[in-house]
Amino acid sequence: MNDTRTLRQPVVVDFASTAFARIKPVAVTAVTLSGAFWGPRFATNIEQTLPSQWDLLESTNRLNNFRRVVGEHDGPFEGLFFNDSDLYKWLEAASWVVARGPNALLEQRIDEGITLIERAQGEDGYIDTYFSVERKDERWTNLRDLHEMYVGGHLIQAAVAHHRATGQRRLLNIAIRFADMLCGRFGSASDGKIEAIDGHEEIEMALIELARETGQAKYLELARFFIKTRGQGLLKGGRFGDAYFQDDVPFDQMESLAGHAVRALYMACGITDLYLETGEEDLLPRLETLWDRLTAHRMYITGGVGSRHDGEAIGADFELPNAQAYTETCAAIGSMMWCHRMLAATGDARYADLFEWTLYNGMLPGWSLDGRGYYYVNPLEDDGGHGRQPWYYCACCPPNVARTIASLPGYVYGTDEHAIYVHLYAESDAQVPLGERVIGLRQRTRYPWDGAVEIQVDGEGEFALKLRVPGWFDSSASLTKAVDESGEAASTGAARTLPKVIVNGKPFDAKLDANGYLEIRRQWQEGDQVQLDLPMTVRVWQSHPKVPENRGRVALSRGPVLYCVERADMPGTDLDELYIDPADIEVEWQPEQLGGVVRLKAASQKRAIESSWGGALYLPLGANAHKGQSEPTTIIAIPYFAWHNRESGPMKVWLNYRGE
Amino acid sequence: MNDTRTLRQPVVVDFASTAFARIKPVAVTAVTLSGAFWGPRFATNIEQTLPSQWDLLESTNRLNNFRRVVGEHDGPFEGLFFNDSDLYKWLEAASWVVARGPNALLEQRIDEGITLIERAQGEDGYIDTYFSVERKDERWTNLRDLHEMYVGGHLIQAAVAHHRATGQRRLLNIAIRFADMLCGRFGSASDGKIEAIDGHEEIEMALIELARETGQAKYLELARFFIKTRGQGLLKGGRFGDAYFQDDVPFDQMESLAGHAVRALYMACGITDLYLETGEEDLLPRLETLWDRLTAHRMYITGGVGSRHDGEAIGADFELPNAQAYTETCAAIGSMMWCHRMLAATGDARYADLFEWTLYNGMLPGWSLDGRGYYYVNPLEDDGGHGRQPWYYCACCPPNVARTIASLPGYVYGTDEHAIYVHLYAESDAQVPLGERVIGLRQRTRYPWDGAVEIQVDGEGEFALKLRVPGWFDSSASLTKAVDESGEAASTGAARTLPKVIVNGKPFDAKLDANGYLEIRRQWQEGDQVQLDLPMTVRVWQSHPKVPENRGRVALSRGPVLYCVERADMPGTDLDELYIDPADIEVEWQPEQLGGVVRLKAASQKRAIESSWGGALYLPLGANAHKGQSEPTTIIAIPYFAWHNRESGPMKVWLNYRGE
Repeated sequence: MNDTRTLRQPVVVDFASTAFARIKPVAVTAVTLSGAFWGPRFATNIEQTLPSQWDLLESTNRLNNFRRVVGEHDGPFEGLFFNDSDLYKWLEAASWVVARGPNALLEQRIDEGITLIERAQGEDGYIDTYFSVERKDERWTNLRDLHEMYVGGHLIQAAVAHHRATGQRRLLNIAIRFADMLCGRFGSASDGKIEAIDGHEEIEMALIELARETGQAKYLELARFFIKTRGQGLLKGGRFGDAYFQDDVPFDQMESLAGHAVRALYMACGITDLYLETGEEDLLPRLETLWDRLTAHRMYITGGVGSRHDGEAIGADFELPNAQAYTETCAAIGSMMWCHRMLAATGDARYADLFEWTLYNGMLPGWSLDGRGYYYVNPLEDDGGHGRQPWYYCACCPPNVARTIASLPGYVYGTDEHAIYVHLYAESDAQVPLGERVIGLRQRTRYPWDGAVEIQVDGEGEFALKLRVPGWFDSSASLTKAVDESGEAASTGAARTLPKVIVNGKPFDAKLDANGYLEIRRQWQEGDQVQLDLPMTVRVWQSHPKVPENRGRVALSRGPVLYCVERADMPGTDLDELYIDPADIEVEWQPEQLGGVVRLKAASQKRAIESSWGGALYLPLGANAHKGQSEPTTIIAIPYFAWHNRESGPMKVWLNYRGE
Repeated sequence: MNDTRTLRQPVVVDFASTAFARIKPVAVTAVTLSGAFWGPRFATNIEQTLPSQWDLLESTNRLNNFRRVVGEHDGPFEGLFFNDSDLYKWLEAASWVVARGPNALLEQRIDEGITLIERAQGEDGYIDTYFSVERKDERWTNLRDLHEMYVGGHLIQAAVAHHRATGQRRLLNIAIRFADMLCGRFGSASDGKIEAIDGHEEIEMALIELARETGQAKYLELARFFIKTRGQGLLKGGRFGDAYFQDDVPFDQMESLAGHAVRALYMACGITDLYLETGEEDLLPRLETLWDRLTAHRMYITGGVGSRHDGEAIGADFELPNAQAYTETCAAIGSMMWCHRMLAATGDARYADLFEWTLYNGMLPGWSLDGRGYYYVNPLEDDGGHGRQPWYYCACCPPNVARTIASLPGYVYGTDEHAIYVHLYAESDAQVPLGERVIGLRQRTRYPWDGAVEIQVDGEGEFALKLRVPGWFDSSASLTKAVDESGEAASTGAARTLPKVIVNGKPFDAKLDANGYLEIRRQWQEGDQVQLDLPMTVRVWQSHPKVPENRGRVALSRGPVLYCVERADMPGTDLDELYIDPADIEVEWQPEQLGGVVRLKAASQKRAIESSWGGALYLPLGANAHKGQSEPTTIIAIPYFAWHNRESGPMKVWLNYRGE
């Protein structure tokens, strides 16, 4: 490997040499986020989130679990059996940070973390501190439940990120030793190996990234083996059955993503990676069908996935309860990771649409504005009892947020041979390699609060700048692609309204390409100015009538941001008594509120419940003909991602509406 | 003990000598159910359910688990650690049957079962086959999770039932040895005993029944100890926290029933039993408050309780999802057992109301018409995948249904010093002891299909016949008592409409007593004829607006029977597309359908979903202004208890309604 190359190209996922990627990534370090929205958040991740998480890794004995392997800590193993992965995700996050420039604190922590891992690794390459002292004999005896490969997968991802970010091989070598041991042990019985899979997917995408990073096909082959071996009931069910692990049916016969949400989505990431490397027939159509069905039947309007606390499961079609939504933060991240890979595989802007929507509305709610609180579960309605926590006994989500935010610059742009793709709108400065050239892109925008985007292009020659037309821009389109009754993606046929493009002060007749990007193909000059105008009007969403809780309700969004109401803005009000008038909504910029947000003010009626119901649970129709007083009032809505950052209190995304 | 007395008085729960019971029970054997509804069901329980369940106890190695204790079976312990309780519940059910008259098969099985238990019991009285061979050292080491006292409680209940039913002491002596061992081991530390409780309530009510049966106060005292010791976190949580076991807060501070539904309801039964024996101040008001809040905030319209698969839990106020309802059959039975005890404690007809409603709509759906299929989970809406099973790995529900049906005659009547109470309307013949007299009651009715009830009273002298005015009879009343915002029962103040009573052909001006019974106090003569007319009109129910899934929906009932629609009656129809017109409903007796049912036919509109939604999950309001065709059609509704007895297919209790 050429360390210099990897040092120059720290990409989140490396599709650079994959034959089947239509859009390649731009390096994390090639883009600097700034502006009022992402600037402070990016800094908060570095200054608050990562240092405090390291302290928690220490104080919860996650680091001591490594020290006890070499006799430097006396107590028992503490916490959950897969807690090593929290350190690994933290290292991945911190690596993306130090790739951007010096950070003495994080560099020192990274070094300390790697040293702990290095010393705890066995001579055979094995590393999992739960099994490294008193449970040595239990290694590999319960792949279904005990996550050894899941933990190892996060080690590999951390190692690849660290190598890309710093050019250093120290952690990579640890991961290679571990992966080589896996390759020697697991695989086809005809090769004398053990045919087994891990209960929690993760190793698949990790091994494929390791193959990309090292050029060693054996890691891709092992990932392929794990993927092809899944779905045959090898794990033998357990409390939630084979579907929990996606082990009930082989991928090529899978009808819908189901079971444990994070596992299902991580599986989908690994299989998309497999397609990207091999171009294997049938994989991509199946992935597209599963994505279409997931987003048309089993996705919250937040982009979140996972309807059931029971088994942390995706749930059945249209099973989307609000207060009882599970929608784990890690599942939102899993969906974003999958979207990123599907975007690479197809070039289709709808994957970037959902990436963006889930970033703002699925993942960001899981992270408090101060950078030190997290949701594991993200309900769309709450009575006030659900607050963010500084950490969890099962703390998979906090460092997963950290690594996603730290690598976010790497998701903004993409390239193919002749074009630069603008996937995300965000104030930023970038140096984008395009063939032999490097094109400077200076993006200025108040997005997500305003859809006016100015991009200064600093480069010469002919190429296309491709601007994503966000899904939210089309005022009559469904949130995600519609799927017909057979489960196939339905064709809408309608012509899309296009936003205005101005180049150097003059209207430019940009065409929409087949993938949903506006193409500006021209001869560029240093300092060319592109203006894109994406007017943000308030969208009022309704749910498919088969979603039981959302009948007679609407949700509000503006631009890529979904809204909610919470009691902090309406003291003393029972949110269930509010009925919104969606025709009368005002938009207000509130610079002092919640770090600066656009909030919405909607006319509404307040209809007293208790005076008409008198405390009964079931009443004969008509028995409460006098429906209690109704009085005009105003609903204040704030971005859903910002909820519960002021005080505890009821919150709702879906609001009563009785005007149909 | 006087075995002759107990042989003559096999009551389900024996309040005969309790000081605080306002209504005493009438013996199971004093009443014979007949008629088209209960006659065949009672026979099915004896001829199909109990014999087939015995065969399953055998074929699933539940009986072999007893044999292996004495070396007569070689294999390992099989099944769940609390499987012994399935045999015990079966013995309780079979005992109620043989109390009614000879049944050679069941008598032989009972004898075989008792012999197995007798031989497996240790010299110290210990019996639990999970812990009787290789796990002897683990006895009492995990009271939180491993149900030793729960299993023992069912042993005691079976023994008490068997003794009452047959006068034989063989099983009772086994239970006494077990209970004596408990008394020696558990209790106050100041008495040198172990302060501990079981994770699953059951032992409390069992011990109190044993105290009633034996006259030994020590069993009552131990039950009281377990009740008073609960709620202090002794069990130390686990995955679902202390609330799962009702161990988070002491009973005298409990605000609402919560946690695992069956445990919570069994706890409530035990505490009501404690009140009935001790009259302890504060217990009854708290029990009444908990009942009011449960039924006003956390009860399905079926009477079922338990909203969450996760932790089999009751759920939060107004959390009542339909397809995801858990509503375990055992929880319905637990609620009925609690209602029976609350009725004894207060005399209030509303407890008999809910007993009846839950019998028809909460428990009966858990039992197939052929007597060989059971639901563990009873959703109020299903896509067709949820079918009854002949047995379960965790088979608590099937024998629980069997014992409830077998003892049902014991719930029909009650007495106090001067009155006979008719709690349930059902064709039947009874010999009811009242003081020194025995009064014959010959009840003729087509209930639950028709509310005309004729009762021939064969007895002499003055007493009151008290006829329950069912809650469903009042066309404007809520299904259960309303609770105001502070959680206290709300007073309605409205005068109730009363049904007509005719005695010997002449109108009788029966007054409603304070407890909801119509009182016919007079000098009776042999052969007096009482006619009660309870016209059954169709009720159209709406839910409190805070129940998220039921907005814009209604449910239908007639008499004590709740209705549902299932696709078997409307082939090819998407039930979600139906919108009922509740003003236009016909009633039809269908003698050949489902064992004979009244079905309902309602005018409705069918509104095509797909043509207006085009497969989208979220659409902007107004984007689908053309709502697709709407065409008139007819909804057929059948009793909810009879669903899924013809073919698999979608089912719904709550129907769309858009006429408000």
